[in-house]
Amino acid sequence: MGGNSFGTIFRITTYGESHGPALGVTIDGFPAGIEVNKELINQDLQRRKPGQSKIVTQRKEDEDFEILSGVFEGYTTGTPISVIIRNKDHKSKDYDHIATSFRPSHADFTYSEKYGIRDYKGGGRSSARETAARVIAGAFAKMLLSKFGIEVIAYVSRVGHLYMEPDMNPIIENIENNIVRCPDATLALEMIEYIQTIKKEGNTVGGIITCVIKNVPAGLGEPVFDKLHADLGKAMLSINAVKGFEYGSGFKSAEMKGSDHNDVFVKSDSGKVETSTNFSGGVQGGISNGMPVYMNIAFKPVATIIRDQSSINQEGEQVTIKGKGRHDPCVVPRAVPIVEAMAAIVLADHLLRKQSDKISRIQV
Amino acid sequence: MGGNSFGTIFRITTYGESHGPALGVTIDGFPAGIEVNKELINQDLQRRKPGQSKIVTQRKEDEDFEILSGVFEGYTTGTPISVIIRNKDHKSKDYDHIATSFRPSHADFTYSEKYGIRDYKGGGRSSARETAARVIAGAFAKMLLSKFGIEVIAYVSRVGHLYMEPDMNPIIENIENNIVRCPDATLALEMIEYIQTIKKEGNTVGGIITCVIKNVPAGLGEPVFDKLHADLGKAMLSINAVKGFEYGSGFKSAEMKGSDHNDVFVKSDSGKVETSTNFSGGVQGGISNGMPVYMNIAFKPVATIIRDQSSINQEGEQVTIKGKGRHDPCVVPRAVPIVEAMAAIVLADHLLRKQSDKISRIQV
Amino acid sequence: MGGNSFGTIFRITTYGESHGPALGVTIDGFPAGIEVNKELINQDLQRRKPGQSKIVTQRKEDEDFEILSGVFEGYTTGTPISVIIRNKDHKSKDYDHIATSFRPSHADFTYSEKYGIRDYKGGGRSSARETAARVIAGAFAKMLLSKFGIEVIAYVSRVGHLYMEPDMNPIIENIENNIVRCPDATLALEMIEYIQTIKKEGNTVGGIITCVIKNVPAGLGEPVFDKLHADLGKAMLSINAVKGFEYGSGFKSAEMKGSDHNDVFVKSDSGKVETSTNFSGGVQGGISNGMPVYMNIAFKPVATIIRDQSSINQEGEQVTIKGKGRHDPCVVPRAVPIVEAMAAIVLADHLLRKQSDKISRIQV
Amino acid sequence: MGGNSFGTIFRITTYGESHGPALGVTIDGFPAGIEVNKELINQDLQRRKPGQSKIVTQRKEDEDFEILSGVFEGYTTGTPISVIIRNKDHKSKDYDHIATSFRPSHADFTYSEKYGIRDYKGGGRSSARETAARVIAGAFAKMLLSKFGIEVIAYVSRVGHLYMEPDMNPIIENIENNIVRCPDATLALEMIEYIQTIKKEGNTVGGIITCVIKNVPAGLGEPVFDKLHADLGKAMLSINAVKGFEYGSGFKSAEMKGSDHNDVFVKSDSGKVETSTNFSGGVQGGISNGMPVYMNIAFKPVATIIRDQSSINQEGEQVTIKGKGRHDPCVVPRAVPIVEAMAAIVLADHLLRKQSDKISRIQV
Repeated sequence: MGGNSFGTIFRITTYGESHGPALGVTIDGFPAGIEVNKELINQDLQRRKPGQSKIVTQRKEDEDFEILSGVFEGYTTGTPISVIIRNKDHKSKDYDHIATSFRPSHADFTYSEKYGIRDYKGGGRSSARETAARVIAGAFAKMLLSKFGIEVIAYVSRVGHLYMEPDMNPIIENIENNIVRCPDATLALEMIEYIQTIKKEGNTVGGIITCVIKNVPAGLGEPVFDKLHADLGKAMLSINAVKGFEYGSGFKSAEMKGSDHNDVFVKSDSGKVETSTNFSGGVQGGISNGMPVYMNIAFKPVATIIRDQSSINQEGEQVTIKGKGRHDPCVVPRAVPIVEAMAAIVLADHLLRKQSDKISRIQV
Repeated sequence: MGGNSFGTIFRITTYGESHGPALGVTIDGFPAGIEVNKELINQDLQRRKPGQSKIVTQRKEDEDFEILSGVFEGYTTGTPISVIIRNKDHKSKDYDHIATSFRPSHADFTYSEKYGIRDYKGGGRSSARETAARVIAGAFAKMLLSKFGIEVIAYVSRVGHLYMEPDMNPIIENIENNIVRCPDATLALEMIEYIQTIKKEGNTVGGIITCVIKNVPAGLGEPVFDKLHADLGKAMLSINAVKGFEYGSGFKSAEMKGSDHNDVFVKSDSGKVETSTNFSGGVQGGISNGMPVYMNIAFKPVATIIRDQSSINQEGEQVTIKGKGRHDPCVVPRAVPIVEAMAAIVLADHLLRKQSDKISRIQV
Repeated sequence: MGGNSFGTIFRITTYGESHGPALGVTIDGFPAGIEVNKELINQDLQRRKPGQSKIVTQRKEDEDFEILSGVFEGYTTGTPISVIIRNKDHKSKDYDHIATSFRPSHADFTYSEKYGIRDYKGGGRSSARETAARVIAGAFAKMLLSKFGIEVIAYVSRVGHLYMEPDMNPIIENIENNIVRCPDATLALEMIEYIQTIKKEGNTVGGIITCVIKNVPAGLGEPVFDKLHADLGKAMLSINAVKGFEYGSGFKSAEMKGSDHNDVFVKSDSGKVETSTNFSGGVQGGISNGMPVYMNIAFKPVATIIRDQSSINQEGEQVTIKGKGRHDPCVVPRAVPIVEAMAAIVLADHLLRKQSDKISRIQV
Repeated sequence: MGGNSFGTIFRITTYGESHGPALGVTIDGFPAGIEVNKELINQDLQRRKPGQSKIVTQRKEDEDFEILSGVFEGYTTGTPISVIIRNKDHKSKDYDHIATSFRPSHADFTYSEKYGIRDYKGGGRSSARETAARVIAGAFAKMLLSKFGIEVIAYVSRVGHLYMEPDMNPIIENIENNIVRCPDATLALEMIEYIQTIKKEGNTVGGIITCVIKNVPAGLGEPVFDKLHADLGKAMLSINAVKGFEYGSGFKSAEMKGSDHNDVFVKSDSGKVETSTNFSGGVQGGISNGMPVYMNIAFKPVATIIRDQSSINQEGEQVTIKGKGRHDPCVVPRAVPIVEAMAAIVLADHLLRKQSDKISRIQV
């Protein structure tokens, strides 16, 4: 049973292998009447794109997208929005050496076990190429959220041993004006230098992305299973290379006492209910409380390294996997728009789910 | 739009407020022909039960369950299994003091905002009382998994500052023979003592539960969204008080290099494909690879503390919340069976989802 | 994979066998803030109840329902509403004679084939006893619909050869003041007499129920698959003994010409867009157009007859099934509230689904 | 909330407007390892294609499909299969006359009401052009079913007043060797002549398609809501212009007695359990019993007629809709492959759903 759809009302379905003819996404449940911002789609695709800087893979991917349906004269119509990206830079010869071998910590072995057949070119469906479709869907989600002032911002907060304290009010310009997407300019330089060193070694390194969602209205989230943070967690964990998720105080909360951790309710000068601290991460009982939602997402080091590695092949024989190809030394700079996209999709879905939760909201 | 169902083929729907007449669960999609182990249900409910030891809440809950459907002469029939637990120890007078006030870091405010109405008795639907229904469903999932040798074991690996290194091969007896459910006997004693101190202070403390799933067959998990670890993550994050989830190398992977993190494939003496290390946590590309699956789940300190706390009420006026009632100083000892239950439900669901993934499996 | 849930936002899950301890339903997604009308639930259960008149089965069923959750001080809370009915009149001895035989045109054989195990008491899950849960859920749906003036009315329009022309504006009193639930008083008497004759013969007869939904707002229905009439069709076809469904002009449309069938749009005196005829049955392109929605549902004759019938048993041997027990000579009088319930559930679901279909409707 | 997905395990999502850039379908949940039969896809598209004969619309549609994903070296891989058809013959000028008017019995008014925006070119999403995507998905479903000997055959059994008795064992060659797709050669000629007369009048006429599914294994169908015939009914009712659905004895059962209607179980010479009659239509209690499944689907006359018709426009003013364009005088000949496609999709879905219904079937 497939798992290629995500969301309930704002529901996306993606398809496409890294070296097949195309990849794409269909969004069902997008409201009618929203002006489509193609520039935003393009911009987020560019932020995810390989070859965008010296610290990411130099592999080329074409990101020309085409909207196939659901938009009429520049506005959404309420019917499914389908968007396609053609693959051009196939170079499938590059992959013959792994057609029958299992690369360490890749999905080669598990796909073979599960399906008994495997599209080995460029990792097939398991390639992070798939996330381009998510970025497109995320851009549409952002268009919806922006109508209500909701803003999703992600940035790199750790690369290997280099990290910063969480910034709850990050400035987009500070993030996007450096190639590693870290809002701390000094740290960004260190991170870039470190990634270049790693790259020279033919190695890779992990990192953390922090995501902050501002102006979230209170009342989003559907207990007891579809809690807002639970859906955010699943969304993030479904991104390639993610190994951990925490929101608010996260893993640190395990060391804290209740008297330190509780967020006291206060009334702001404008009359809004707020909390004086925000260990809750903007979510209480699985429902947003009106405070900023924030979370950390841990990415493992990319599995492809430019070194010879021992492995086995389909026949169970020991083989040596040659390290070659063009891959990212560190995935987090390019994963920033992917994290934003998945966060935006979850928020958009819960915004739409909220429409029917009390009788006083229902319109005929 | 509600969020009270979980799973796709093995699908549970829960209901019930902490101080209403009853709570329960309906499991749809459970296969026919499995002998029902009532003792297992009872045992897991006892492990979750309040009042079971001196380090948990002394509140009494009745855990007499009744199977209402889906079982005939001791075996499942393939029709929905519904199980009910009656609530007896209501004592709803205890809650009048919070009927119109919002307890810090509880779900009082968010439920009010979302629904415009609130069952304030004992937290209503947001109470962890709800997890008894999950434990029942989890026991049924374990009955299914045990037919295939799959075993789910959870234990407490951290309470506040006290922690142990992950044990990938925990012994159930070592876990269950102490009241904090930590397999390290010495550490368990320290934890118990620490929780008692916390309790005397009227305070609470957080902790971490580690869960290990053994004998998972390769091939479970449905990319690209319903990856095995993504569904596990959502399952865990949906449990009350959980703030973080990581699997395999988790957050530590963000500091690691690819050359250290990659798990090398080897062939075991028995001819099975294995990996020499298991930073992947038994999951690659979202699909199980046959190695043990393991994860850590972070719990915040319980929000109810026996201290006066400042807050506001429904009218936005500042109030003082009196600290009283019978609550857990540390939630992790009782949350162990809940973690196991959610893990078992996810595994059972993916075991059933796997049945149709290749033509050679399909039976008419 | 089970099929015991229905609906998307207004989503019901039912459980229970006819001779098990209980049956029930959980409704997830019901909006908060609606006053619960227990009398309506009771009334619809009474209309479905066996033994209510001389033309229905004299079998006794207890219909005392209990609301277990989702209601606080008389109002819905937005959390799942679970309602239970205990079974009392088991008499399971009655069914020993069919424990291993397959009654003709019953579900005995197919359940055995599918599940390899069978709860043979009273048909188990395949018994129409199950529909009591639907009636309860339907009563809740009616409570929601009534807030918006939407009214669901069903009546018997055919019993065997006796039938009436469709009445698009039926009067409830005319329906409910006779035991066969036909609004044509003269025809009702004939139908009652005919059913009594059939009953004396130990035989059964089929019939048709017509359902009219008034004051449906324009815009309900979700093309291209979840068209309003497609969901109504599935809802009706899921009721025991239903063999056919048509809406608007239905099967007659197959004989008509476009020039006769097209419904001309006109503006009513009040300024509302209407159609001068209503062959469309209130639905165009799968979306309600503001005109009354109407449909016919065909029921086969009940399979249980008081005659000896030839069949086979589990071993494939030829056996004679003795005709005995208390069953309905004609199912349609008691099925009227079931049809209404399923129609109400579909309408309620689509009313809630409509909340997010255009940006101008979305509320934060 | 959108409704553009259908099925549970075999799950399709379609997109595309009649005069947009493209239409398409993504199939999630298709098993890996099936050889793709492109000729079958092409053949079914040709059977649905406009302009194929003198009795269908002469409008041209391009049916060149492209498989974008999910297939590797001719075999399915278990990942989503996405197929696209580009639209070429746009001619959108044809539609300016209806941009602001509501054609009688079309979906113009209801789409406007629902979404507040409308792609008026060629009916946009409400056009039957959308069904090309279903035919593609249906061809994939047939590829799966054929592995298990299951065969889906549909034919025209009524056009206006001309009809035939149901043929439970239709010969495909007899159906496909005439342009109206009626297996009775004499009746086919009459139907063709009649449709030509209707066409000359600028009028349209309705009809009925009968569908027979052979070699259905016992045990398909998921009570109590996802009964096999209920899902078939929804599938058929979701097709443009369908007004009614019946299976087995259908509406006739309403006039029958139980003693005549019951299907007696017998053991065939080969030892298989069969029924001596098949009023049940191969389904009992919502589950297939191994006998042929058959059903009738009623289609209304096409709403577009070459006559002036009175209507209103968006401003509520009375207007005259000019009858022009190239449309079908009778939709049933071209709808035969659409009916087959939807039937095949339902059967494929239930075949996959069946895999987990008893413990003895589960494979790890």
